[in-house]
Amino acid sequence: MRRLDEAGNFDNLRLATGKAQGTYRGRPFADTDIYKTLEGVAWERAREPSERLASWQDETTAVLAETQAADGYLNSYFQFVGGGRDRFTDLGFGHELYGAGHLIQVAVAARRATGEDGLLRVARRFTDLLVETFGPDGQPGVPGHPEIEMALVELYRLTRHRPYLDLARYFVDARGRGLLGPGQYGPAYYQDRVPVREADGIEGHAVRATYLAAGVTDLFIETGERALLDAMLRQWNDMTSAKTYLTGGIGSRWNTEAFGHPYELPPDRAYCETCAAIGSIMWSWRMLLATGEARFAEAIERALYNAFAAGTSLDGTRFFYVNPLQLRGGTPADHERHPAHGRQPWYRTACCPPNVIRMLSSLHHYLVTSDETGLQLHQYAAGTVDAELVSLRVDTDYPWSGRVEIAVLATPEGPWTLSLRVPAWCGRVEVAVNGSRPGDEPRPGEYVRLRRPWRAGDQVVLDMAMPPRVTVPDRRIDAVRGCVAIERGPLVYCLEQADQPDKASVDNVLVEPDPGGLRAVDRPDLLGGVVAIEAPGRLDRSEPTEGLPYADWIPNSAAASTAARPAEPSPVRLTAIPYYAWANRDAGPMRVWIPTG
Amino acid sequence: MRRLDEAGNFDNLRLATGKAQGTYRGRPFADTDIYKTLEGVAWERAREPSERLASWQDETTAVLAETQAADGYLNSYFQFVGGGRDRFTDLGFGHELYGAGHLIQVAVAARRATGEDGLLRVARRFTDLLVETFGPDGQPGVPGHPEIEMALVELYRLTRHRPYLDLARYFVDARGRGLLGPGQYGPAYYQDRVPVREADGIEGHAVRATYLAAGVTDLFIETGERALLDAMLRQWNDMTSAKTYLTGGIGSRWNTEAFGHPYELPPDRAYCETCAAIGSIMWSWRMLLATGEARFAEAIERALYNAFAAGTSLDGTRFFYVNPLQLRGGTPADHERHPAHGRQPWYRTACCPPNVIRMLSSLHHYLVTSDETGLQLHQYAAGTVDAELVSLRVDTDYPWSGRVEIAVLATPEGPWTLSLRVPAWCGRVEVAVNGSRPGDEPRPGEYVRLRRPWRAGDQVVLDMAMPPRVTVPDRRIDAVRGCVAIERGPLVYCLEQADQPDKASVDNVLVEPDPGGLRAVDRPDLLGGVVAIEAPGRLDRSEPTEGLPYADWIPNSAAASTAARPAEPSPVRLTAIPYYAWANRDAGPMRVWIPTG
Repeated sequence: MRRLDEAGNFDNLRLATGKAQGTYRGRPFADTDIYKTLEGVAWERAREPSERLASWQDETTAVLAETQAADGYLNSYFQFVGGGRDRFTDLGFGHELYGAGHLIQVAVAARRATGEDGLLRVARRFTDLLVETFGPDGQPGVPGHPEIEMALVELYRLTRHRPYLDLARYFVDARGRGLLGPGQYGPAYYQDRVPVREADGIEGHAVRATYLAAGVTDLFIETGERALLDAMLRQWNDMTSAKTYLTGGIGSRWNTEAFGHPYELPPDRAYCETCAAIGSIMWSWRMLLATGEARFAEAIERALYNAFAAGTSLDGTRFFYVNPLQLRGGTPADHERHPAHGRQPWYRTACCPPNVIRMLSSLHHYLVTSDETGLQLHQYAAGTVDAELVSLRVDTDYPWSGRVEIAVLATPEGPWTLSLRVPAWCGRVEVAVNGSRPGDEPRPGEYVRLRRPWRAGDQVVLDMAMPPRVTVPDRRIDAVRGCVAIERGPLVYCLEQADQPDKASVDNVLVEPDPGGLRAVDRPDLLGGVVAIEAPGRLDRSEPTEGLPYADWIPNSAAASTAARPAEPSPVRLTAIPYYAWANRDAGPMRVWIPTG
Repeated sequence: MRRLDEAGNFDNLRLATGKAQGTYRGRPFADTDIYKTLEGVAWERAREPSERLASWQDETTAVLAETQAADGYLNSYFQFVGGGRDRFTDLGFGHELYGAGHLIQVAVAARRATGEDGLLRVARRFTDLLVETFGPDGQPGVPGHPEIEMALVELYRLTRHRPYLDLARYFVDARGRGLLGPGQYGPAYYQDRVPVREADGIEGHAVRATYLAAGVTDLFIETGERALLDAMLRQWNDMTSAKTYLTGGIGSRWNTEAFGHPYELPPDRAYCETCAAIGSIMWSWRMLLATGEARFAEAIERALYNAFAAGTSLDGTRFFYVNPLQLRGGTPADHERHPAHGRQPWYRTACCPPNVIRMLSSLHHYLVTSDETGLQLHQYAAGTVDAELVSLRVDTDYPWSGRVEIAVLATPEGPWTLSLRVPAWCGRVEVAVNGSRPGDEPRPGEYVRLRRPWRAGDQVVLDMAMPPRVTVPDRRIDAVRGCVAIERGPLVYCLEQADQPDKASVDNVLVEPDPGGLRAVDRPDLLGGVVAIEAPGRLDRSEPTEGLPYADWIPNSAAASTAARPAEPSPVRLTAIPYYAWANRDAGPMRVWIPTG
């Protein structure tokens, strides 16, 4: 909240109302930093009442209502800088519809979380203007940055006002037909190259792509149009099988913050924007709702514990924009967003920190679902699950331990199904109900489904073995050939310089690829308490070459192959930490993928 | 010349003179496309008279003289678009000094090539304005895009007018002191982060960096200031040992067209702009002049035959902007500059094609030098060398054959030294003068120096063995770990899809790393006549995985490691072609670095 003040976001609103004089600060979509923070505030208040948060929400709502134009329009940049005359003239890069989407999302969140509808009135006035302006009979156009699609469907869910759903459908239908023009990055950048239903792969700006996909999946959920789900499955498969990092991060390219080609997954130049991890979680969540398939919950888990979690410092005050899987020693920090700078308290384009805020504040929404058969636990966290008639207590130290204890606190009469997700990484798993093994054998990558008439006091124990694992990349990922990674449970591990023996530069170590040699070590002292993993490695002491870093291969001549083969590898004990915790000491050398020889 | 008409470059000049109405087209530095083409025209005319080229040069010179403002200023963009009022207000990105540099270079070239000084008058009037405007007592400032530094030194060499050299020195001295501000990409982008003499590494935009370095090296040559040469040696070593591709290409990043960090050399996302290859050749040439060391000529050779040569189609009409070392199958062409589009006849930012033109037209300048000891042959090409008193004929089929025959046609009395460069790649070399081996034993990476009283009719034969080689990368280059490349003589080879058996996708082949298995094959039928190289390979028939492209490593279990290990590799005969010749059929899958297993 303080950062928003300092960065000028509220001043921008005051400029738009004419209450202040000055210069607009930040990007044209600066209002959305307020919206996303406000969304976090609303969810936080639902979790725990706070007068301070309540009054901030009230004041901010009042300022927004005051800023809103008479006809419902609301965007401080276009209202102030363009004097309101440029409205909707730059849909490709103006971000007005993107802003409207975030306004709608926070309005829905505020209503659901706190029952207040001040923001909802503001959002509906703007949305009604959009319904009037766009759509089949209005101004043709689609947003350059998707976001409003999922917001409109959510507003429809809250209000059952059909024009909102129709507008969402219009924005989806009109996409990929050239309305945005090529822009400066070509139509693929903002998913306007092919119509949504015809797209086979995922492409372009990773946040735009996943936000759009989340909205399209929402639209399928409300309309049941199978062509939408088919397109989403094709794109999700393309993303997952060839364009996703081990951390669950997406977006291989700094240039246009975009997905790369299939298997283009460089660890050092990975962009993996924190917002893109959030986008992938939001999309996979909707795919989970649409299908009930465990793989979508699996993808959420991977992104959540790794690509997303790494975006925030352990003390919660600093944020990464970019989350690579490797940082070499001496890497110059040549860009504000470059991780060699370490996490930053804020950014000139400040999309990520407020997005982290609202994701963390609403995280409990992503854990459990219910349907007519019963309850489904997708992610494991200690706490209480209160559904309409069922109440459960979950005790677990997950992700440090794979043991999850579930106590039934309240239950209706008659049988219902408690579904527990068994992650695909889980090689050995046991489940017990009141001490006995049920008939249904748990299988990795599926749900174990426990159907019975439950009684208060019933105890379920899910015990997932969590040995450290060695992970190998598909050989098509050229950038990490000859390397392995270390994982344990849902956590991806990395080598960070601070944990290695002095002599062992992370840039120069090799690891033995034998999982039998890995040892999980409880380290309450380290980085707020982690399970570290010790691994036998070797140290390469060869010096940098002079001249070109290429040499002749001369068979059977060790000397002639020095360029490729390390000289004098010597044993060393390596310590890996969870990837999410890196760069909390300094942003020194780090790598997830470690060469084996 | 036709492309310049079509792209509006001449119309821009007419706009600036008020002789036409309309809209400025292209980038603010569009005039430089004319300058560079004109430079090529001047050199071509020196090689072979042409009325057509002469009249084009005359007309263009007249138009430029007419466009030039009364006080000497010349830049159609700032004259027309800004009405002349914004001059020198955006040194970071305005490119006025860059444009002046190219104007000076073509003026010097025209004078030297054709003896005409119409352009020289234009260039000197502009330069005199710059001398008045900038410098220690004038407006502080340095160009965002270096280029004028080397041009000013060259103009000084031609005119011996000291203020030109002083202005070059001012632009070098004032650099790295924050005059440009951070701009949108930070000061490292345009080499303004540290003073020139203090820079240890090379960084930022690759063309800017090498153009600056060429100018600084020129300044050292004229002033003898050792600190300049020391800084250039440090930067050149940094570039060569850790930031240069096997092709001699430079610039690892699409984002800001920049050098990456040390050993950040991804083959697929290599930018390797054609202009950057030209920049590196221009810089290495000046380092060669400054030091006489063979390694600089070696670098020129590598860049020339590979990174630079690949920039132009075999028929000379189409150009690559970006020259990666790998293109995967099915790669979507998502950017005008992306090689998946194939070479283009022109670009919206058309810097590369005219730069190729002037480089090719002046290429003979880069082959031979003379000094008080005699003549030095740095690059081998068939033709005649005419020095002041010496005349040689060189017969060779280089780079297809390593045999070079040199006949002395004319020589002065008394002994002098004929120095012949023996490339570092050359494992076995013989030299003979009139059939006898001289005392000086030729050594790879050095010059063999033949000192004697020469007579007309003397015959020298340099015979360099040119077997195909297997090249391994330094292990620090993470992106090509586990791969080798094929080279022969100065040529880097690649696998292109068109040459492989149908079943063998370039994305799925492995190569045996044994140079003994390689076979050079004369292929006059192929790509205008090349020596191809056949290599024993294996074919990976494993199918893409479903789900995440990562899997558990389970020791001693082939099945569990499928992700990393290809299933059923089967023998296949691979054919490699010279890298420069790729994408002359279609821009299909291609790779320089080939996995070995």
